[in-house]
Amino acid sequence: MGHNLLSNKKGIIFGALNEKSLAWKVAEKAVQEGAQIVLTNSPVALRMGDIAQLGERLNAPVIAADATSVEDLERLFTEAQTLFGSQIDFVLHSIGMSPNVRKGRSYDNLDYALMGKTFDVSAISFHKMLQVAKKQDAIAEGGSIVALSYIAAQRTFVGYGDMADAKSLLESITRNFGCLYGQEKGVRINTVSQSPTMTTAGSGVGGFDLFYHFADKISPLGNASAEECADYCVMMFSDYTRKVTMQNLFHDGGFSTTGMSVNAMQQYAKSFDVKEQ
Amino acid sequence: MGHNLLSNKKGIIFGALNEKSLAWKVAEKAVQEGAQIVLTNSPVALRMGDIAQLGERLNAPVIAADATSVEDLERLFTEAQTLFGSQIDFVLHSIGMSPNVRKGRSYDNLDYALMGKTFDVSAISFHKMLQVAKKQDAIAEGGSIVALSYIAAQRTFVGYGDMADAKSLLESITRNFGCLYGQEKGVRINTVSQSPTMTTAGSGVGGFDLFYHFADKISPLGNASAEECADYCVMMFSDYTRKVTMQNLFHDGGFSTTGMSVNAMQQYAKSFDVKEQ
Amino acid sequence: MGHNLLSNKKGIIFGALNEKSLAWKVAEKAVQEGAQIVLTNSPVALRMGDIAQLGERLNAPVIAADATSVEDLERLFTEAQTLFGSQIDFVLHSIGMSPNVRKGRSYDNLDYALMGKTFDVSAISFHKMLQVAKKQDAIAEGGSIVALSYIAAQRTFVGYGDMADAKSLLESITRNFGCLYGQEKGVRINTVSQSPTMTTAGSGVGGFDLFYHFADKISPLGNASAEECADYCVMMFSDYTRKVTMQNLFHDGGFSTTGMSVNAMQQYAKSFDVKEQ
Amino acid sequence: MGHNLLSNKKGIIFGALNEKSLAWKVAEKAVQEGAQIVLTNSPVALRMGDIAQLGERLNAPVIAADATSVEDLERLFTEAQTLFGSQIDFVLHSIGMSPNVRKGRSYDNLDYALMGKTFDVSAISFHKMLQVAKKQDAIAEGGSIVALSYIAAQRTFVGYGDMADAKSLLESITRNFGCLYGQEKGVRINTVSQSPTMTTAGSGVGGFDLFYHFADKISPLGNASAEECADYCVMMFSDYTRKVTMQNLFHDGGFSTTGMSVNAMQQYAKSFDVKEQ
Repeated sequence: MGHNLLSNKKGIIFGALNEKSLAWKVAEKAVQEGAQIVLTNSPVALRMGDIAQLGERLNAPVIAADATSVEDLERLFTEAQTLFGSQIDFVLHSIGMSPNVRKGRSYDNLDYALMGKTFDVSAISFHKMLQVAKKQDAIAEGGSIVALSYIAAQRTFVGYGDMADAKSLLESITRNFGCLYGQEKGVRINTVSQSPTMTTAGSGVGGFDLFYHFADKISPLGNASAEECADYCVMMFSDYTRKVTMQNLFHDGGFSTTGMSVNAMQQYAKSFDVKEQ
Repeated sequence: MGHNLLSNKKGIIFGALNEKSLAWKVAEKAVQEGAQIVLTNSPVALRMGDIAQLGERLNAPVIAADATSVEDLERLFTEAQTLFGSQIDFVLHSIGMSPNVRKGRSYDNLDYALMGKTFDVSAISFHKMLQVAKKQDAIAEGGSIVALSYIAAQRTFVGYGDMADAKSLLESITRNFGCLYGQEKGVRINTVSQSPTMTTAGSGVGGFDLFYHFADKISPLGNASAEECADYCVMMFSDYTRKVTMQNLFHDGGFSTTGMSVNAMQQYAKSFDVKEQ
Repeated sequence: MGHNLLSNKKGIIFGALNEKSLAWKVAEKAVQEGAQIVLTNSPVALRMGDIAQLGERLNAPVIAADATSVEDLERLFTEAQTLFGSQIDFVLHSIGMSPNVRKGRSYDNLDYALMGKTFDVSAISFHKMLQVAKKQDAIAEGGSIVALSYIAAQRTFVGYGDMADAKSLLESITRNFGCLYGQEKGVRINTVSQSPTMTTAGSGVGGFDLFYHFADKISPLGNASAEECADYCVMMFSDYTRKVTMQNLFHDGGFSTTGMSVNAMQQYAKSFDVKEQ
Repeated sequence: MGHNLLSNKKGIIFGALNEKSLAWKVAEKAVQEGAQIVLTNSPVALRMGDIAQLGERLNAPVIAADATSVEDLERLFTEAQTLFGSQIDFVLHSIGMSPNVRKGRSYDNLDYALMGKTFDVSAISFHKMLQVAKKQDAIAEGGSIVALSYIAAQRTFVGYGDMADAKSLLESITRNFGCLYGQEKGVRINTVSQSPTMTTAGSGVGGFDLFYHFADKISPLGNASAEECADYCVMMFSDYTRKVTMQNLFHDGGFSTTGMSVNAMQQYAKSFDVKEQ
């Protein structure tokens, strides 16, 4: 049940893979709120995932683009504007991948070529997208751009590896490009720092289930779901948030500002009841 | 042109005085979005301001209550629930006043009785309101409470005096009460940290015009207006933001994350062109 | 084994009670580093604690002063300057107490008179001390003032109650007074945000032992001890840190920037091995 | 006049170029405090700068090493340990360079190969250094590692370009590696976020003089000098700060927590006195 928050708005959604994806939920919700969208992901992801079906269902063109390729991004923004017959009002960047984490390399045993890849895919792609968009003047005055981040950009989490650095970089790019794009064109850029989520990407992190449970116990409202994340992103795309820019917005049930909750402490206390044998 | 974001929702708005007030704009916008509201302010403010007209126009009962009086707050929440025939879904706290600043006392020459008054009116009133509401179980599951704050809670601003301390206290209460109320009842509590605004309260700060101009130059999107603040508050009251809690949300055109902008630097540069005589 | 870091420096140490106190350790260390000091605490604390012995051992005069009394503070700063024959170079504020926590009142059932007391003792006392000192021009150019704080000023911790708000207030006063005192007299003011410590005050918090253990597991270097805190404070009083001001400095073994560590996760995992019966 | 704070300690100083360099001052101060050091910089910097003289004066071997080369770093740490006959107690990383900024490319017109170079030189070099050191078990228990950063990691500053992103990355690496190295070996890792400084690197930023002046006016204690930065780094290397890790420590005269000061406002006000012609 939408409220037409995005009627007449056009957007590009990066990073939907399957129905667990945050970007998938954002795409659905954006359309439900009246937006027209273009879906995009890398050629590989298009083959592996179910994005074609999503596109069909949402009446959304799917354009293959490698977000690390300036050329692909140029083509994507050009085609999207042609399809829409107008500039673009909102963009979601939901892209992150660490080959070091995938290969199980610990943070003190990184491969630097892979680290470069982590940064290129997960953070520099955001700068490329913004630079291409600005050069094409592709974003409408008052447009809104959101990238998904994680609190590992502020505090270290075991197992998250060089993705933590990539998220710090992503948030920094948000501030620095947000200043330029805001001053010149009134475009706002923010990150949404989401609770751990049971997506394909999330599940790749070692010990994820345990941590997911801990975060849920710490957070006074519990972990935020993918659907709730989509609601929040839609509101950031809407005209209700036109003066919010260069911010990292925690969408996490209160995790970020809770040091220790009753629930988590009670669970932790149980760990001492275990008989050592 | 609302989107019915608050249809079926009931709220209490603290702190509207006249049409310049942030709370005034929030009240208008909330009703436009389909909410039913109760307006409240202190007896003195009711006499000085134009709130009766606003109440009439918005079909909103006006209930006098001193926000520093637990008794008054108890009566207010009881009456509001009776009027609505239900629990309350959202509350705005837009209350701040420093007798030290009003009397022109500098921060190194404070009167401590007045400082106590500053805190009681501007911050502890928020705790009282929350404690009364929770004891009455007055807030509906998933309800949303917002207090207006200012970046002086993080950085010092000349002339803002002990209001800066009051805002720090307000944001701390937000976190601490938000944890409890969230875990037990699913109620979220946040502060919106607004740009300097040309309200009656804002104008009371010495050198305010100059600082307003500086903030406008620094902020890539310019200062956020009272109307835009109202949009943002409405969004925080809506169901689109149900997992955001215990946060301080900057609504400031990017001021908080801009160290130095092109515009501000150009203006600053001019200061050296002045001939010293 | 000192390094004479504070030779020729004079200081006032607030808040030593017994040998577990942070202030006690700071006093010992300051003297070891060549400083002359005055010890002070409230008349009640002087009776209850062992401060007289400490004063004797350190050759430090003990002056009774209620830190919430401007008059007492005026007398204290005057007497201390007379005793030293000079201005004062450093001050430690290590004072905190919540009657609400002591009486076991939860944060949603506070007594507001007691909350006022919490703030007056734990935070406003710092403003009073600074205002008195500045009016007397009691602090030497380049002097250093430190107050002890806790991370509950940034994140909520179950059981810490309104002391969390008091610490937020304390850190805010640090910034606001630090700006004035820095600009006019070159005096720097900072807070040190210390690990949970097994002091008489710390042990008063409910579930403290469990939380102490959790913090120790999360912190990569483990909790910082009282002795280590004293080392850090001494360094902040020394001339090695003359341009650090208005900061909250975490002295916590890395707790503040660690979301989840291997050690804490392993302990937490054990809690699921408990058989529910 | 040192206090022997680093007696018996061995350190490696990266990044001294000439007598204006922050690293130069740190090297001098560390030796003055009783340390033995090795100086290192890239072969190019060794040719351009005056580091040989410094080495001679301080009785410090100079070892050429490209900090982006794992191989060079391995050789450096091996040789340094051989020279010292022991593990290393402290390391300073003072390396930063953006070819994009040098070539005058604005932040919305970056060359991505150059951006990769910025990150590799200014941030990833820190990870490489840490990873090499840990693999060699080169740092002594309780060792201290400091990298120099800048507040552009938190807020955007016109003209600072992709160096801002590099500093965010540097601070993130500090947290993530600090957690591992702390837990396993008790090694602490921090960044010092220094005032703008009139070094060869600093002067390369456009409009630097004007900004330096502005920062000096905002900061209640004025900008921190290179000498003062060296004092602070030495204290971070000493045993007085053994439980401080994974922190970004502002050494900036209070700039970071000052929104607007009297001095800066007075200067800014003058800009409106200029007659527009």
